[in-house]
Amino acid sequence: MVALLSIENINQNIRNLEYAVRGPLVIRAVQLAREIEQGEKKPFVSVIRANIGDCHAMNQKPLTFYRQVLACASKPELMETDHSLPEDVKTRVRDLLHACGGQSVGAYSDACGIELIRRQCANYIEKRDGISADWKNIFLTTGASEVVKTILSFVNNSRIDGQPVGVMIPIPQYPLYSATICELGMHQVSYYLDEERDWRLDLEELERAYASESSKCDIRVLVVINPANPTGAVLSRENICQVIEFAVRHNLLIIADEVYQHNIWADDAQFHSFKRCMSDMNVKSELVSMMSASKGYMGECGLRGGYGEMVNFEPEVQAVFYKLLSARLCSSVLGQITMSCVVNPPEKGEPSYELFINEKEKILADLKAKAKLVADTFNSIEGIRCNKVAGAMYAFPQIYLPEKSIKAAEEAGQKPDFFYLMALLEEAGICVVPGSGFGQRPGTFHFRTTILPQPDTFDEMMTRFKKFHKSFIERYS
Amino acid sequence: MVALLSIENINQNIRNLEYAVRGPLVIRAVQLAREIEQGEKKPFVSVIRANIGDCHAMNQKPLTFYRQVLACASKPELMETDHSLPEDVKTRVRDLLHACGGQSVGAYSDACGIELIRRQCANYIEKRDGISADWKNIFLTTGASEVVKTILSFVNNSRIDGQPVGVMIPIPQYPLYSATICELGMHQVSYYLDEERDWRLDLEELERAYASESSKCDIRVLVVINPANPTGAVLSRENICQVIEFAVRHNLLIIADEVYQHNIWADDAQFHSFKRCMSDMNVKSELVSMMSASKGYMGECGLRGGYGEMVNFEPEVQAVFYKLLSARLCSSVLGQITMSCVVNPPEKGEPSYELFINEKEKILADLKAKAKLVADTFNSIEGIRCNKVAGAMYAFPQIYLPEKSIKAAEEAGQKPDFFYLMALLEEAGICVVPGSGFGQRPGTFHFRTTILPQPDTFDEMMTRFKKFHKSFIERYS
Repeated sequence: MVALLSIENINQNIRNLEYAVRGPLVIRAVQLAREIEQGEKKPFVSVIRANIGDCHAMNQKPLTFYRQVLACASKPELMETDHSLPEDVKTRVRDLLHACGGQSVGAYSDACGIELIRRQCANYIEKRDGISADWKNIFLTTGASEVVKTILSFVNNSRIDGQPVGVMIPIPQYPLYSATICELGMHQVSYYLDEERDWRLDLEELERAYASESSKCDIRVLVVINPANPTGAVLSRENICQVIEFAVRHNLLIIADEVYQHNIWADDAQFHSFKRCMSDMNVKSELVSMMSASKGYMGECGLRGGYGEMVNFEPEVQAVFYKLLSARLCSSVLGQITMSCVVNPPEKGEPSYELFINEKEKILADLKAKAKLVADTFNSIEGIRCNKVAGAMYAFPQIYLPEKSIKAAEEAGQKPDFFYLMALLEEAGICVVPGSGFGQRPGTFHFRTTILPQPDTFDEMMTRFKKFHKSFIERYS
Repeated sequence: MVALLSIENINQNIRNLEYAVRGPLVIRAVQLAREIEQGEKKPFVSVIRANIGDCHAMNQKPLTFYRQVLACASKPELMETDHSLPEDVKTRVRDLLHACGGQSVGAYSDACGIELIRRQCANYIEKRDGISADWKNIFLTTGASEVVKTILSFVNNSRIDGQPVGVMIPIPQYPLYSATICELGMHQVSYYLDEERDWRLDLEELERAYASESSKCDIRVLVVINPANPTGAVLSRENICQVIEFAVRHNLLIIADEVYQHNIWADDAQFHSFKRCMSDMNVKSELVSMMSASKGYMGECGLRGGYGEMVNFEPEVQAVFYKLLSARLCSSVLGQITMSCVVNPPEKGEPSYELFINEKEKILADLKAKAKLVADTFNSIEGIRCNKVAGAMYAFPQIYLPEKSIKAAEEAGQKPDFFYLMALLEEAGICVVPGSGFGQRPGTFHFRTTILPQPDTFDEMMTRFKKFHKSFIERYS
């Protein structure tokens, strides 16, 4: 019997899409870890995975408050039987369950999420920005990834006889964007971030990118990631205002990926939301901003909580978007409740506050220290250059590869950065992601590493890295 | 400032899609409930919502075992402090956490889900079917809805110059299918179920539907819902084998929506999986089967757990599908753990078994009684005719509407079934879904009601319904 589905007759956009964060290097890393578990001998005792912003997988401990709320919401009897539960946890859970169908997290919520939590998100945004936020503009999702996919699909009005819709994305970018653009048959318009100036977002480069592609597609969307994944840059207020002016000039919907808004490390950096800047400029153009429970200090990736805020949308357009959400019923209610913890944490004076704030500040302080250490360490290695990590969870160092290694990679049919990093994995047991997965200027080579490994592992990783790099360079000089 | 996004320049497929289960009637029902809460006087004291298969929202209680596992997985310290927890719960949670990154449900899982749970799903399928199942063919999802959307997108290879891909779906159907087909720009090929013969799936009708549309599109997929939503029919083994022969004859991928496999009510009905029937027939064609934590006896809709099983796919094709899943990182880990409870419940001899089986059997017995009662009651009303509810959670009765009411509906610019049901909602406070949302033969009118209201509410609903129907018919005679 001949197969109905072949590599040639499935959706070719899906065939072509790439998502390097979970690519072949990671698959090999998992395999290596298993081989070690089964007793095989390797040049290292463990595989260190710095390929993904997955805090708990790197042994960051969950916050007590979050898990008390989740456990209680799942099993409300705990409120009667577990006398160690603080009162503010119980109050929150009672309110949340009251907002659930049948007082159970097992009931579907409204398609946009539980109203109470949407209101809490709006309060959080109001406090953050000092301007009003309408809870009706908030929709709760299965992580921020779902915001990106649904919004891009929503504006994708390319017709059979028309041009594809163009989406401007930074290079380097988080590959969810390029993958989704490819999946939806949209056109990627790349603007390069300026590595020489701490990955700054340049207005001239935006204009250049727009002009160079505007004849090939109908450019409708501008994606900005701030604080940035993978570069670790944080935009200044002035820079954001320039970007908004650019978007207005060219009639572009702004998608502001602001999931790292809690992750600010550089002393001179500060998070400014696109929404607030737009409001200050008195601009009334459409904007979607997103937030997640996976990043920040909480790092609850597996619970898949996120929200999007729609700003300045026409009501009838927004209604169509919400109709689209309704067909997938709702996002995980426990994911929504995790978002509730993010936007409505214990406040001063509440019984959970002390422990919460200690745990939170410890995590943030550790990350801040590692953000500095990672850049310093890479910069101390000859042939590697790393910008400061001002925010987010990653560094994106450049590696200067010897010509011989580039040739060897080509002979192996591999990209030079991939070739280097596969050797790093096989010889030193370190898994990071090649720059080619995020995009980089032609002829340059990078990798993305998270700053998440715990201090001991982090030191071990840096030691192994230095040793490997030296040996690799010697081999190909 | 002119809006960038208007109803005309967004994705028109999304503009056009419909999802009646969450449509205008439901929006009005929510509004009515709020008005009552705020003290407004209505002809009824409460709105009874039978529009959606949402067990917990209808006050079905969660199973103790499920919630113990979820609470413990969220807050593992409970295993030390909560002495009421049975040992088998603790053992399961320990195994599950061991399979999570950093032993936390807050870590991302593999894109296809936690390997341990995929293996448990495979074991469950093996036990159910008596034939082998490979855990590598199982992928865990955000409810079964995600299986449908990703698989349809995956096979959607329509090119700019080519025909759309055709998807055969039953009429009446669950509107996720028509909505997704519309969203993806695919072509819906409707085959009618035979209401006169208990909503049987007829081979001749499949052939007729195929022949009538095959010149307009490239028909590649056949969707079968068994047990059926919204009709409540359960396919016989013989019927399934006929369908498989049909699919093989026309080179169709079968999507078997088997989420109601635990919901069998008629004494002469039995669940047969498509996979098992295919195996018995020695057919090696591609099949995707899906299961969910939202239905069955557990009804954990809000936790968004589901799985898909890919059968007989070429390995390289399956690898591309898994790559697609990787770009959305993973489904909710607590949703995955809920699926683990579904496929790996307490076994005889384990401490949780007695309570679990009592709770489960009570729920199933209640549903079974209501399945019979709902059909009997509707059949006792003049002008309504209801087939037996052999399985799933719904009845799909036909209403014979007076000519005058059809005219009145047309004058109001409404579909006649919608017109009737809006009156039912306004006058009797009962929210069900019009047949037009699921599809029905032209000139016939139906509605879908769940069998979920608890006994008291159910009686009240039937009383109100009878009274309303009589008054409506009199008004328009």
